[in-house]
Amino acid sequence: MRRFAALSEPGPGVSRLAYTRLERQAHDLFASLLADLGIASYTDAAGNTIGELAPDAEPRPGAIGTGSHLDSVPHGGAYDGTVGVVAALAVAAAASAGRPRHRPWRFVAFAAEEGARFGQACNGSRIVAGLTGAADLRQLTDRTGTTMAAAMTECGLAPERVETARWDPRDWRAFVELHIEQGTVLEHRRVPVGVVDTVSGSTRLRVCLTGVASHTGGTPMENRRDALAAAAECVLDCERLAVAAADVNTRITVGALTVEPGAITIIPGRVVFTVDVRETDYGRQRAAAHAVGQRCRTVAARRGVDVEVEELADTPPVVLSREVAAAARAAATALGLPAEVLASGASHDTQQISRLMPAGIVFVPSRGGLSHSPGEFSTADQIAAGAAVLLETMYRLDATA
Amino acid sequence: MRRFAALSEPGPGVSRLAYTRLERQAHDLFASLLADLGIASYTDAAGNTIGELAPDAEPRPGAIGTGSHLDSVPHGGAYDGTVGVVAALAVAAAASAGRPRHRPWRFVAFAAEEGARFGQACNGSRIVAGLTGAADLRQLTDRTGTTMAAAMTECGLAPERVETARWDPRDWRAFVELHIEQGTVLEHRRVPVGVVDTVSGSTRLRVCLTGVASHTGGTPMENRRDALAAAAECVLDCERLAVAAADVNTRITVGALTVEPGAITIIPGRVVFTVDVRETDYGRQRAAAHAVGQRCRTVAARRGVDVEVEELADTPPVVLSREVAAAARAAATALGLPAEVLASGASHDTQQISRLMPAGIVFVPSRGGLSHSPGEFSTADQIAAGAAVLLETMYRLDATA
Repeated sequence: MRRFAALSEPGPGVSRLAYTRLERQAHDLFASLLADLGIASYTDAAGNTIGELAPDAEPRPGAIGTGSHLDSVPHGGAYDGTVGVVAALAVAAAASAGRPRHRPWRFVAFAAEEGARFGQACNGSRIVAGLTGAADLRQLTDRTGTTMAAAMTECGLAPERVETARWDPRDWRAFVELHIEQGTVLEHRRVPVGVVDTVSGSTRLRVCLTGVASHTGGTPMENRRDALAAAAECVLDCERLAVAAADVNTRITVGALTVEPGAITIIPGRVVFTVDVRETDYGRQRAAAHAVGQRCRTVAARRGVDVEVEELADTPPVVLSREVAAAARAAATALGLPAEVLASGASHDTQQISRLMPAGIVFVPSRGGLSHSPGEFSTADQIAAGAAVLLETMYRLDATA
Repeated sequence: MRRFAALSEPGPGVSRLAYTRLERQAHDLFASLLADLGIASYTDAAGNTIGELAPDAEPRPGAIGTGSHLDSVPHGGAYDGTVGVVAALAVAAAASAGRPRHRPWRFVAFAAEEGARFGQACNGSRIVAGLTGAADLRQLTDRTGTTMAAAMTECGLAPERVETARWDPRDWRAFVELHIEQGTVLEHRRVPVGVVDTVSGSTRLRVCLTGVASHTGGTPMENRRDALAAAAECVLDCERLAVAAADVNTRITVGALTVEPGAITIIPGRVVFTVDVRETDYGRQRAAAHAVGQRCRTVAARRGVDVEVEELADTPPVVLSREVAAAARAAATALGLPAEVLASGASHDTQQISRLMPAGIVFVPSRGGLSHSPGEFSTADQIAAGAAVLLETMYRLDATA
């Protein structure tokens, strides 16, 4: 863990953004740690790094895979993603010297999972699943205007040839990822292992409120069209909608908000903010996103402020493989570890991979549910327990027909 | 008006910030327009430009002054400040060819009136009033870290010698400034001339809320310490406090607000915002600023968010000269123009000058009350009526003992 965490921009926390020199150094470290186990690996055109351990018993077709990602959000933590890659290395070490395996086992570090830099999450896994192509990479830009394609080329990758990185489902049997929970269900219930049945969908909106910028001293309260006061009502309405849903998986967040002109003595004329609506049921997700837009329009109309609501992205919830989840629960039981079935509020590479093959996710507890924060933490024992369940799950999947 | 408005960074609106090349070009234009009237002028160490017309009747000691400022906020309008300088030029033209004057008349373009760049408003007038000195100029910085002293030096001014720019009260009799109202009282009452009795005070706060940044998908609503949701409540509390005061001169505004980390998928961990409290009564002003701090602390405590409230500035209301106001009302009456006595919610150079001598402000209507906005507008007739009242007021002050 520590060697990966050291590969970061200056703190607080870990900053190892998608398609940067630091992310590539982390992939190189992964490859060299696989090599130390005698496992050869390669990095594909999209920047995913993949090592394979050949079967050592009567071979069956279709590989079993595990892995996660090595990039982070700005000032994120050392655990999101990296825990799953370190667990894959632990599985590789145990498997190369352990019980016989009938299938190839593959160990994967996906590239560019975080959407923080380019707005597109799970880029490496989307490419191998055939969901993102070369043309898309030329459209996506970071805040400095660099396209994803340019950033990839700068890192020595081959954005124009990413179609060569696609995985053939016939070559695979199953995939299972270990990840930190990024929530508090396991911590609150004091359960060491989570088995994910559903990954929440996410509808992302951008709301732009345009009022009238004017002098703070000269403009009486009743003559104002204050874009920030309107936005404040919208922020609280988003929170109220989510709380009123009374479902622990309904989460609505205003994460980014900018004020123009943004001076002490000027009433805000324009505010732009984002809304992230997460749900495990797609119907409820669409209804909640619609309700957010309606609330914003109501607030704006009452305050004489113009409003535009734009949908930036819409990803439905994903139901993961029951077969993989059953194997993970059985593995935990075999190891004497209680396991809880739960939803994932965050998206993961495995939800993209689930389009190709049976796929599942195992969670270890996150202290305080913290994630995308320097405060991310799981104990070494929690990670080791998760890795043990991961290994046992892979053996069980290896043994299936 | 148009020649000054052309001196701007690219739009929308006029951007001619304090102590920039563009502000200096506007001062040069003012000096050259005075020179066209045969009036010599100089620019002092602080960047104020001052021209003088000598008396042409039996001389009396003590000058009568008028003028305003030529800088703007970012993306402000063409009228705030500039109207008063253009009116001073109109007065200079009329006076140099008009009735005899017993006193020197001085025409002033103050430097750096807007606080938008360095946080300190009325810098040029504060220097001539002895309220700001060379040491202060080295402390004040803009958002790029440039000190006011460095910006002044860059413009060819002499920040280390600003004490030489101080005005001697014995050398003056009175000062009167024409300015746009930046409010809607004159427009709503259809009155062409405002005579200001009081300038509101302003208490400026910076509030910093620190919650916990975490993943928007992974963190249930009930486990959040969302700094932006807390700030949204504070913004609406500020608005409610001002509306509840039920005094048209009580104005509380959150003008600037920034969110960290400010990403779609991260719950805001830290929000910093400013509050500008304006009042015409200093007791009420202090009470309102105190109430804002209390409300922010209450919200923060309920949400488990840390809060710091810092006072950035505190300027009490200023009561202007009754003598100058009476002269302005009499001037309007003599010209057959209705005049309304009112407060100014915005601060002005003349409130600094009022420390040195009897001083007053005459307002012309602002369309929609707009100011610090590209939408600032007053008609040519409104400005001409104001300039006529200004001229007549100066003759009346010129004739006093």
